[in-house]
Amino acid sequence: VKPTWAQGNELKFTLRVDFTSFPPNILSVPWYGLYQLWRLSGLLGLRQFLAFPGFPRTLQILRWRLPVTCLLLQVAMVVLFGVFVRYEADADARWADSKAQHNTSDLENEFYYRYPSFQDVHVMIFVGFGFLMTFLQRYGYSSVGFNFLLAAFGIQWALLMQGWFHSYHEGYIHVGVENLINADFCVGSVCVAFGAILGKVSPVQLLIMTLFQVTLFSVNEYILLSLLEVKDAGGSMTIHTFGAYFGLTVTWILYRPGLHQSKDRQKAVYHSDLFAMIGTLFLWMYWPSFNSAVSNHGDAQHRAAINTYCSLAACVLTSVALSSALHKKGKLDMVHIQNATLAGGVAVGTAAEMMLMPYGSLIVGFICGIVSTLGFVYLTPFLEARLRIQDTCGIHNLHGIPGIIGAIVGAVTASCATTDVYGINGLALAFGFDGFKTNWNASMQGKFQAAGLFVSLAMALVGGGIVGIILKLPVWGQPADENCFEDSVYWEMPEEPKSTVLHPEDSTLKPSEP
Amino acid sequence: VKPTWAQGNELKFTLRVDFTSFPPNILSVPWYGLYQLWRLSGLLGLRQFLAFPGFPRTLQILRWRLPVTCLLLQVAMVVLFGVFVRYEADADARWADSKAQHNTSDLENEFYYRYPSFQDVHVMIFVGFGFLMTFLQRYGYSSVGFNFLLAAFGIQWALLMQGWFHSYHEGYIHVGVENLINADFCVGSVCVAFGAILGKVSPVQLLIMTLFQVTLFSVNEYILLSLLEVKDAGGSMTIHTFGAYFGLTVTWILYRPGLHQSKDRQKAVYHSDLFAMIGTLFLWMYWPSFNSAVSNHGDAQHRAAINTYCSLAACVLTSVALSSALHKKGKLDMVHIQNATLAGGVAVGTAAEMMLMPYGSLIVGFICGIVSTLGFVYLTPFLEARLRIQDTCGIHNLHGIPGIIGAIVGAVTASCATTDVYGINGLALAFGFDGFKTNWNASMQGKFQAAGLFVSLAMALVGGGIVGIILKLPVWGQPADENCFEDSVYWEMPEEPKSTVLHPEDSTLKPSEP
Amino acid sequence: VKPTWAQGNELKFTLRVDFTSFPPNILSVPWYGLYQLWRLSGLLGLRQFLAFPGFPRTLQILRWRLPVTCLLLQVAMVVLFGVFVRYEADADARWADSKAQHNTSDLENEFYYRYPSFQDVHVMIFVGFGFLMTFLQRYGYSSVGFNFLLAAFGIQWALLMQGWFHSYHEGYIHVGVENLINADFCVGSVCVAFGAILGKVSPVQLLIMTLFQVTLFSVNEYILLSLLEVKDAGGSMTIHTFGAYFGLTVTWILYRPGLHQSKDRQKAVYHSDLFAMIGTLFLWMYWPSFNSAVSNHGDAQHRAAINTYCSLAACVLTSVALSSALHKKGKLDMVHIQNATLAGGVAVGTAAEMMLMPYGSLIVGFICGIVSTLGFVYLTPFLEARLRIQDTCGIHNLHGIPGIIGAIVGAVTASCATTDVYGINGLALAFGFDGFKTNWNASMQGKFQAAGLFVSLAMALVGGGIVGIILKLPVWGQPADENCFEDSVYWEMPEEPKSTVLHPEDSTLKPSEP
Repeated sequence: VKPTWAQGNELKFTLRVDFTSFPPNILSVPWYGLYQLWRLSGLLGLRQFLAFPGFPRTLQILRWRLPVTCLLLQVAMVVLFGVFVRYEADADARWADSKAQHNTSDLENEFYYRYPSFQDVHVMIFVGFGFLMTFLQRYGYSSVGFNFLLAAFGIQWALLMQGWFHSYHEGYIHVGVENLINADFCVGSVCVAFGAILGKVSPVQLLIMTLFQVTLFSVNEYILLSLLEVKDAGGSMTIHTFGAYFGLTVTWILYRPGLHQSKDRQKAVYHSDLFAMIGTLFLWMYWPSFNSAVSNHGDAQHRAAINTYCSLAACVLTSVALSSALHKKGKLDMVHIQNATLAGGVAVGTAAEMMLMPYGSLIVGFICGIVSTLGFVYLTPFLEARLRIQDTCGIHNLHGIPGIIGAIVGAVTASCATTDVYGINGLALAFGFDGFKTNWNASMQGKFQAAGLFVSLAMALVGGGIVGIILKLPVWGQPADENCFEDSVYWEMPEEPKSTVLHPEDSTLKPSEP
Repeated sequence: VKPTWAQGNELKFTLRVDFTSFPPNILSVPWYGLYQLWRLSGLLGLRQFLAFPGFPRTLQILRWRLPVTCLLLQVAMVVLFGVFVRYEADADARWADSKAQHNTSDLENEFYYRYPSFQDVHVMIFVGFGFLMTFLQRYGYSSVGFNFLLAAFGIQWALLMQGWFHSYHEGYIHVGVENLINADFCVGSVCVAFGAILGKVSPVQLLIMTLFQVTLFSVNEYILLSLLEVKDAGGSMTIHTFGAYFGLTVTWILYRPGLHQSKDRQKAVYHSDLFAMIGTLFLWMYWPSFNSAVSNHGDAQHRAAINTYCSLAACVLTSVALSSALHKKGKLDMVHIQNATLAGGVAVGTAAEMMLMPYGSLIVGFICGIVSTLGFVYLTPFLEARLRIQDTCGIHNLHGIPGIIGAIVGAVTASCATTDVYGINGLALAFGFDGFKTNWNASMQGKFQAAGLFVSLAMALVGGGIVGIILKLPVWGQPADENCFEDSVYWEMPEEPKSTVLHPEDSTLKPSEP
Repeated sequence: VKPTWAQGNELKFTLRVDFTSFPPNILSVPWYGLYQLWRLSGLLGLRQFLAFPGFPRTLQILRWRLPVTCLLLQVAMVVLFGVFVRYEADADARWADSKAQHNTSDLENEFYYRYPSFQDVHVMIFVGFGFLMTFLQRYGYSSVGFNFLLAAFGIQWALLMQGWFHSYHEGYIHVGVENLINADFCVGSVCVAFGAILGKVSPVQLLIMTLFQVTLFSVNEYILLSLLEVKDAGGSMTIHTFGAYFGLTVTWILYRPGLHQSKDRQKAVYHSDLFAMIGTLFLWMYWPSFNSAVSNHGDAQHRAAINTYCSLAACVLTSVALSSALHKKGKLDMVHIQNATLAGGVAVGTAAEMMLMPYGSLIVGFICGIVSTLGFVYLTPFLEARLRIQDTCGIHNLHGIPGIIGAIVGAVTASCATTDVYGINGLALAFGFDGFKTNWNASMQGKFQAAGLFVSLAMALVGGGIVGIILKLPVWGQPADENCFEDSVYWEMPEEPKSTVLHPEDSTLKPSEP
């Protein structure tokens, strides 16, 4: 059904395939869904809710923005899930009947192949990204809490968007454990973008951004994985490159010239850095699961875990080396340890499931630790001063550049694939060289991998631009320049603890008189 | 052997079944064990140990309460384990012989089906519940430490109690990974109850409560799962409803009119709330494992994980919405984010393994986020002011009401089960409609599910009452009203840190002269 | 090929076996590797880098020690991985071809047996050990960060060293998930030793120690597992005893008479103890995975998890009992809760996979909780005052003594093994009584287990002595006595937080004027 691929490998064929070889109803479904969502929001008084701030009693209305947005989105999710989402065969009670017919073991259920990896990825999204961003001294509640909020919404919307593109059969999206992982991946990309705008946006803005970014992510992922037939198991392109440049474009548009007024709070305190290390370590430790979670069963998952393990280990040493080398007294900087040590995981995202070889992974990690730390020391200040890109967490160094490196490594590794290294079945399996791709060879795969990188970058820049402009509307409750990086804008804060005057110790063993 | 079920589905048959169809020796075993425990404690001088506080040299004796209780309980565990506990066939070295006979794969060992879920549940009990309760500013050591202590004792006692009821064959309890999970579940119920009395009891009281609550939990679970044949994989009834109302009854009896003297310490500080978020997130992330850990192999585990994932995601958005909506300035409250976001997991506990459908899960989560947050804002103050129920962590909102909702959702979902939805084998498998339950139908199952809720509530209220009265005895070293929520009563505290005067930086690079 | 074993079971045969029955090239490989490493470091100017401190411009050179060491080691790793490391068959793309031939299921891939356990062990090494050591008030960055650094280097070097000994075929080391676990285990031993010298050494010293300790660990492990055919799945001997006595010897040689100058910082503050509890709990919860990770498939893994679970639970109660009993007012000490509760996991390391029986595990845990707490109260001060062993974390109580107990328990349990208990196949499988060990019996196995303990102790003391002398050289940037336990020596520190003066709340809802 997709014969055009076999005849020519140029990108101009892509669009033709889009509209010819797919039944139009599949492609129209997500847009139909979005349209319904939009209509619904209109019916529920979104116009009033969006009223601009000069309007009388604005504060009264603004105060309802967050609850209304949350409820609205959640109602939409319930309705769309009701219409579209059902269980995958492996998760459906009728599996018992089909199992009886095919005489398979319970263990062949996809659940047992993927579930442990899923849980690891889940921890990365919620604890990993959430706590990684708690390094700011007065933004811990928001870092963890808003990350929690956007991810919880994002995974639902991602189940729908990715479902329409990849799991839509006979009018229903069939959801299984692999969909859960992919939804977490998609949200991971939003968490990356969140890192760039951390401390400068309201939760409503984050929900709006999540809505759009998940949509664009799914389109981009569909183009890469299904149209370009790119391999990207760990998401160097789809998750990290896309997420980073999307976020950087948004923060570029939301540039705040007066941000220096909140500069004091844009630093860590001792304990906030330790909280952030919780995030770093869970990301670091579970990254092998991240890169192997949706790889092919068996050797591909196994290999992806090994490669990621190696790359991350190498990355730690070079990050430490550079961090010390670039400090005038040779001291280490927590920012580098928290972030640059993870770059190795990003950069083997695409190639981890390929025959990159353990030493190849070490080389990738080696380079990324250096590049990422250099980025934190030289590039981030440059971006802020010259390009007016205020990148709170330095995602350009952790996800942007390493993501691009990962895409290139993936393209090169794919180009070099041979049956000597992969075996005959192995090569076909690793790159899906069967069906309409029978005539493909490794070099062609490599070219399409490279094309995937450019598509991702283009989608991120254009999409980020549009979403940035939407988020710039002065109706979303964004904090004033002097209130950035400050929890108390959005959170009921505890009082400062009083000096703890204790009662004399003798009374401690006196039981209460009931 | 249990024909009475097939003939009538009324509850009055229950008791008859109790005493007729089971060999009396099985039922007598736990009581025999308890009796031996009691005798042993007498022999070891418990009478003196329980001496009332007016007695001369009381302090000298009281000071030994905690060590003696711990050692006594642990010795009892060693003895009872020695007499009763052996490995399950899958964990016994003789498995090699049986495997050789039956020609099964190593993978068919139950270990591989359940172990990843077990570890996730384990994390929930120890890190999840432990850190969730660290929100109090001066009670972090006790929250984590006492939770650790009671859970470590509880899992041992639960292995015995649940073993006598469910895994007792030929004079021995046969323990495997499923028993470990169930023991963790049982302790989860104690951790729930701990939340209500947090900060107001001594560790000795907690151990005593654990001893009784685990016993009652096991009886209740036996009635529900084995006599009423109720399905409750995630424990909405057995764990959450039972645990919550048990704890609330205990705290009602332990009512402290003078608790306002410790009111200052009953609040969070900035970092304590971040520690609590560690607990929240690990509970939230691993809840899909909790609800699927002991479901049937294959599709049931798979489905339970998906449903819980969906319900929890929906719950986050409605919790955030209500938290903001109910605050006069639209700000969020950490208490709600830490707790109400988890209610969705509680409320799909019973129905998660059923064909609840993803949208059904979203609806459950949607409702629970709202109900739970409303509970924190309106119900908890009401309970404290009017009903004299001092519920430190608000477990009524997180486990009580959502548990009841979960039981109802489970009963309704079971009632609606059809072979259309489940398939023929699937329906029989999901509800165990075989053997003596051959004549059952879904509606009957639904009625028994509802009956299970009432039995759990009754057991919790009666049991909690009795245990509360026992804990009210003035011999357990409970803290005085003005010393509640204070670690220093039970812990050696670190000194306040001095202002850190550092040595001049130059010396830092000077190597020591050895 | 190893007939000598069958003829005599005395240790003097060991050395003969070494040099006769193995092809010399295998044994020479690691030394060749070390030699190349040494030559390489010479070529890169290590002589200058090691220049003694009196040299002019020393500070300039010293400042480069850490970066140069890191880069040098990492380059060496890349080169050695390039020459030696390839994927194991299960992780190689050619697995698809072999699978097609042998008609095996994807699930039979080793990945699915071991990966969940691997991730748990990974968490223990990085979060568990890392955060366990954050209890010091001003050494949190270093505890987590240096642990991260040494572990990241150590796992790479361990993959090589252990690979040369155990996975070296046809000129290549074949790496799979089991190698990753074993590398983590090996690094665990270094983390143990790190506990003894915590706060008193520089990161360069740690890297040097890791280099040597991993090397010695691998030699010791090879002697135990491959020559003495000892069973030690959880590493009571290879990991804990070896690591502890290695670390104690090092700290004995690095004795600092002036350490009292940093005494103020050698204590916890409130929050640092809570961070340490994160480490404790993750170690405690995942220890069943640690002890079962590399056991035989099926019942052995299952049994190891159960035994460890039981032992750890018992250990908590006796640790709490002793901690309270030994305090003059009956209060609990966080140090004991953080450490002694883990001793039960150490002490079932060897016997966990054997038929120790659940009550046997409880007894082991019971004893270790007592012994370990007693050690903290009486032995650690004694060691410091009399033997000049400054053991920062008290590893002697957590890993040293419990490790020895574990080795003894293992030897006794092995001695008592019978076919009655294990079954015929079971016994052969559990102890590998086949091939050249056909004539062995349980008692012989027990003797060799005991021999393993003495070899480990000897290796630790001798190795630790040599490494300690190397680390005593005044060229590694160790902190001065008055700067121990202080992050600011090696880390760029955040400023003390200013009193947070917030802007008036009204402005918080005012959107920024863009």
